[in-house]
Amino acid sequence: MSEESSGSKRKVEVCFSPALFPVYFQDKNCAVVVIDVFRATSAICSAIDNGVTGVIPVATIDEAYEYKEKGFLVGAERQAEVVEGFDFGNSPITFKSGKFSGQDIVLTTTNGTKAVELAKEASNVVIGSFANLDAVCKYLERLDKDVILFCAGWKDRFNLEDTLFAGAVVEKLAENLRFADLQDSAIASKDLYLKAKDDLFGFLSESSHRKRLSKLNLEEDILYCLKLNQSKNVPVLLNGKIVKG
Amino acid sequence: MSEESSGSKRKVEVCFSPALFPVYFQDKNCAVVVIDVFRATSAICSAIDNGVTGVIPVATIDEAYEYKEKGFLVGAERQAEVVEGFDFGNSPITFKSGKFSGQDIVLTTTNGTKAVELAKEASNVVIGSFANLDAVCKYLERLDKDVILFCAGWKDRFNLEDTLFAGAVVEKLAENLRFADLQDSAIASKDLYLKAKDDLFGFLSESSHRKRLSKLNLEEDILYCLKLNQSKNVPVLLNGKIVKG
Repeated sequence: MSEESSGSKRKVEVCFSPALFPVYFQDKNCAVVVIDVFRATSAICSAIDNGVTGVIPVATIDEAYEYKEKGFLVGAERQAEVVEGFDFGNSPITFKSGKFSGQDIVLTTTNGTKAVELAKEASNVVIGSFANLDAVCKYLERLDKDVILFCAGWKDRFNLEDTLFAGAVVEKLAENLRFADLQDSAIASKDLYLKAKDDLFGFLSESSHRKRLSKLNLEEDILYCLKLNQSKNVPVLLNGKIVKG
Repeated sequence: MSEESSGSKRKVEVCFSPALFPVYFQDKNCAVVVIDVFRATSAICSAIDNGVTGVIPVATIDEAYEYKEKGFLVGAERQAEVVEGFDFGNSPITFKSGKFSGQDIVLTTTNGTKAVELAKEASNVVIGSFANLDAVCKYLERLDKDVILFCAGWKDRFNLEDTLFAGAVVEKLAENLRFADLQDSAIASKDLYLKAKDDLFGFLSESSHRKRLSKLNLEEDILYCLKLNQSKNVPVLLNGKIVKG
């Protein structure tokens, strides 16, 4: 196929909010990258890196309780804090001790796990974070499908950190002529990332969620979430569970 | 009031899609700037500049037909073209002859007039375009309320041109310390505008809607819509009709 044929080019779009996902999700045969940099998708990558065999994402606290009653290890975060009565929240640091290694866990978060739930009908659902940026991009190139970069946002609002990660993926994919059909949302995200990439931490200093986390003394988490390519793993959704792809 | 008190600072947010408007519109006591650069809000500014006394925005073709049967001059645009049977579309050039001067007109467009309909419950609804950028900013400063910059987008998708105008407003407002509470969406829009401002036409060359209009030989319209501060008028919504503010 010729490069000029737009039919041979893969479309790359960024969905900035769960409330917009139905607008962008018009064809199930696509790759959806779920992005919740602070902190759900960074935490899921860390869990898989540290030996967790599977992460079962659930949307509500009620579902999370049901799993807890069945004996699962369950994480629950709302408003950036661990929900009382659960084993952990969405800090990626949690998994570094390796104490969850070899086990399945359950997780519910304010934004990220809801986005996974919305995306589950797509043929491929991938978990993206700065920790596995290059690995995700290589995976998307191998899949060779249209891509929706799905920012979990904050309570359906646009946020900067998820958009920057989306832009980082667009920048990498756009080097490959197969992914030349960049929609407006992809162009905007890439330009923002190019502006911010040399100092992500500084660029995000005015962002609403970094301020929210800083108030909770989560600077260590923030630094972890903004460190590129710590992992070669690509967590993917398979039969309702996130596993190593 | 002290500058440090966040209560004294006006919040500035950008809503990137009509589908997100309910998320951002939490308090009716705010100023909503409806933005559809290509071309509804540019056309409405041009109409008011050229003597049109009022623009009645309607969301559907059916409503537009009802007004036509009552004898009104009615414009209707869908997919960037004039709908058959109507008097005009959403080209801002239409009004330059002055032939609509002294009259009320009716208008329905793919995105812009729907956004006006969604925003109508706000205490202040303002029509923004590059043509009246400075006038809109001064008006918002006088109002001294929280601001939602409401991008009409394209069929509920994010678009670049509306975001750039939103960013231009944010840049101006942010010079005033009263408007210091910039949300993530406002920061992103401002940064995109700063990147694009020296060559809006060039920056938008890859945007989906500029391509759509170029195919229809609407380059003259595009240039008009990207020319700053041609007008000192601020069209506002008053009792269902857009009039000079």
